[in-house]
Amino acid sequence: MAKAPVLTPRAEDFPRWYQDVIAKAEPADNGPVRGTMVIRPYGYGLWERMQAEMDARIKETGARNAYFPLLIPQSYLTREADHVEGFAPELAVVTHGGGKELEEPAVVRPTSEMIINDYFSKWVQSYRDLPLLINQWANVVRWELRPRLFLRTTEFLWQEGHTAHATHEEARDFAARIHREVYEDFMVEVLAMDVVPGRKTVRERFAGALNTLTLEGMMGDGKALQMATSHELGQNFAKAFNTRYLSKDGRRELVWQTSWGSTTRMIGALVMTHGDDSGLRVPPRLAQVQVVVLAVKDDDAVLARVREIGDRLRAAGLRVQVDDRTDIPFGRRAVDWELKGVPARVEVGPRDLENGTAMLARRIPGGKEPVALGALADLLPGMLEEDQALLLRQSRERRESRTTDVSTIDEAVEAVGAGGWARVPWGVLGEDGEATLAEHAVTVRCLVAEDGSVPEDGDAPGNVAIVARAY
Amino acid sequence: MAKAPVLTPRAEDFPRWYQDVIAKAEPADNGPVRGTMVIRPYGYGLWERMQAEMDARIKETGARNAYFPLLIPQSYLTREADHVEGFAPELAVVTHGGGKELEEPAVVRPTSEMIINDYFSKWVQSYRDLPLLINQWANVVRWELRPRLFLRTTEFLWQEGHTAHATHEEARDFAARIHREVYEDFMVEVLAMDVVPGRKTVRERFAGALNTLTLEGMMGDGKALQMATSHELGQNFAKAFNTRYLSKDGRRELVWQTSWGSTTRMIGALVMTHGDDSGLRVPPRLAQVQVVVLAVKDDDAVLARVREIGDRLRAAGLRVQVDDRTDIPFGRRAVDWELKGVPARVEVGPRDLENGTAMLARRIPGGKEPVALGALADLLPGMLEEDQALLLRQSRERRESRTTDVSTIDEAVEAVGAGGWARVPWGVLGEDGEATLAEHAVTVRCLVAEDGSVPEDGDAPGNVAIVARAY
Repeated sequence: MAKAPVLTPRAEDFPRWYQDVIAKAEPADNGPVRGTMVIRPYGYGLWERMQAEMDARIKETGARNAYFPLLIPQSYLTREADHVEGFAPELAVVTHGGGKELEEPAVVRPTSEMIINDYFSKWVQSYRDLPLLINQWANVVRWELRPRLFLRTTEFLWQEGHTAHATHEEARDFAARIHREVYEDFMVEVLAMDVVPGRKTVRERFAGALNTLTLEGMMGDGKALQMATSHELGQNFAKAFNTRYLSKDGRRELVWQTSWGSTTRMIGALVMTHGDDSGLRVPPRLAQVQVVVLAVKDDDAVLARVREIGDRLRAAGLRVQVDDRTDIPFGRRAVDWELKGVPARVEVGPRDLENGTAMLARRIPGGKEPVALGALADLLPGMLEEDQALLLRQSRERRESRTTDVSTIDEAVEAVGAGGWARVPWGVLGEDGEATLAEHAVTVRCLVAEDGSVPEDGDAPGNVAIVARAY
Repeated sequence: MAKAPVLTPRAEDFPRWYQDVIAKAEPADNGPVRGTMVIRPYGYGLWERMQAEMDARIKETGARNAYFPLLIPQSYLTREADHVEGFAPELAVVTHGGGKELEEPAVVRPTSEMIINDYFSKWVQSYRDLPLLINQWANVVRWELRPRLFLRTTEFLWQEGHTAHATHEEARDFAARIHREVYEDFMVEVLAMDVVPGRKTVRERFAGALNTLTLEGMMGDGKALQMATSHELGQNFAKAFNTRYLSKDGRRELVWQTSWGSTTRMIGALVMTHGDDSGLRVPPRLAQVQVVVLAVKDDDAVLARVREIGDRLRAAGLRVQVDDRTDIPFGRRAVDWELKGVPARVEVGPRDLENGTAMLARRIPGGKEPVALGALADLLPGMLEEDQALLLRQSRERRESRTTDVSTIDEAVEAVGAGGWARVPWGVLGEDGEATLAEHAVTVRCLVAEDGSVPEDGDAPGNVAIVARAY
């Protein structure tokens, strides 16, 4: 008897598959105001783990968390011309507060450059105050006309870092450090995603930045998703806010700045990178639930045993949930955990207990086999590390097999049309070629140097443009 | 030579002392939109520690974190009559989004009962879905006419819990569990505050609740501050949103609900409870920096040694910061750490190294004495626990010595006027007496039973009202 598929197959309709996964695995739901999102406990659990892993890496750089207000006076937005132009069409505006019309409307932050720079200009006085390294975990609002859960939402959660430095070089190095030691390290080591670090073209750069560094991931349909960006802001904001420090030799110098952010979009990326026709597959290092221990039947011996196994696995350092909801049919629960992508299921029924075993189902490689109960705590940590490595390998293999080296714009459009990425020499493409690609809804995701490193100069000979359709 | 005081003495002008502490210890700054606040890294570090300690306790109850949208359609607010009346004057209203006037304005959440209940009504279908236990860490906006940093701000950070249960009894027990096992335990054990758990009068109850449980703390000026509340919502919201579950015997029953919250206000309470004329005093179990190791002078041997001491104390499980900013005068740094209330300072200069000692300054009991370098890691953990206990004891002694048992309304007003709390039999006071007190700006903070427990019935004979001026 063939099982009716719970989800639209990926190969049939990827966007619908994505919608199905979100609906069935229940990481989120649509909010009542258009484009907003309710992040349900399972999705928020993913975000909490992302936060914990990223926050530790951010603090390792010396940055400290702070919190700036949600509401920003509208006049602030006009201080840096490029910046305001970039955000104006997306703003949510508060015109009434406390029952009265406000003298000056306030915007709900679309990002916090403006308000944070206002405070930086007060807090930075001397070279002793530098570097000033601030990070914030917060919600932001950008009005979204074509919303899609996690990928484009009117409100999303993110971290935004903002720093001020004494020299151009220090700021450049810090932006690069965040790019590689925080973002890339987290994405590769925890999300098991084979992201490509690169540099944005002038066209794709953040409004008001000198340089934007990015990490691009290939999704299951061959499209690209920008995972996080780190910007060198130069002195544009410092000039707009007159943020100066007294140098050791007594001069009032403008600071050099960076900003960098990553968002709940990463949850969507996770789904589209590792998901398959049975649902999510969550990398074990990220998973809030690495192992679920299921009672197959309502039986006292079984219930006692699943709780005991749960305790033992927790003691072995694993993140474990016990599922003893025997008033819900076992099959339904098993499918649900599969949809949610929990890496390992330990299923315990009365017959298993007689044999001293449990069935171990591994979500990532697939498959199910009996394992001696006493061996679980020893086996599982190593298996989960294998699963983590397998996801990364599959992500790398997809990118490699679906990326084509081409030498003309036409070939690039063709390769992307076939569902993948193209690598084309930037010298062949240039800004005109980039504009031509845009007519085909293809963008330059990033520039990489000949040797695969991140180019210090966007126009260096040998730079290669990675082009794709993008989320 | 007498040191000029950095702060206005508490006894001279408590509100000005509070302002001075906030300005000098730098936990926060005023935001540009009236009533908003920038939480600076030192203040946010306190909040992060509060979050970590509270979040662990909240998860221990089985509740899980989620995230609901910031923006709520204005029409939602009208669904529960008492509730909307409570919040209407404080709302911030978004009328424009994405460059256009919105068809329906959205309010920035002042609390999330409305939006969360809308989803509860979808998610709850069967008795198997209960209890549904959700918590959210978020920002909320309530327009504030007389703002004061941390105590009353237009935007603040908080956690808000929302739960649905099958029976009245379960909901009541859960509200009580949050009240005592999450809030009271955290406040007593971590914040070292001798809070009083009690029950609100009908007049002081949350808009739309059957019963509100509270924890009240006495501040340094004898006024009361409501630290957190836990509400039994009964079936008011369930009726408004038609949130029903299919019971085991096949009937569609309304759920019983709770909500509960605590905010960044607790940072203000911490300042006003433990602060003294030299600044903050942070309880060691809360402190993000428990020990600061200071290099007195720019000397290679000293710098090497402070880093080594820092590593050793970290290895002993302490939260440590090394202060090697020798380009700032030592005296200024020492005063700054004193203002910030870091429990222990280890000061290392060249002369100390010769003696194999460091100066150990203890912020909480006060005093400074040389300690052998090798003994620090053994000594400090015990000292910090002593300091933690001392703060709690001082808080308890203040409350006891400044609380007066009275038997008339006039005596209550007089006792409160002298700068403290009064305990007056609720039978003497009643709702009329409560209204009389209000004319003197005195409120009933909570009702407690004769034996000190939290009364199950607000009108039980023997109930005592604790009355005070409040923040």
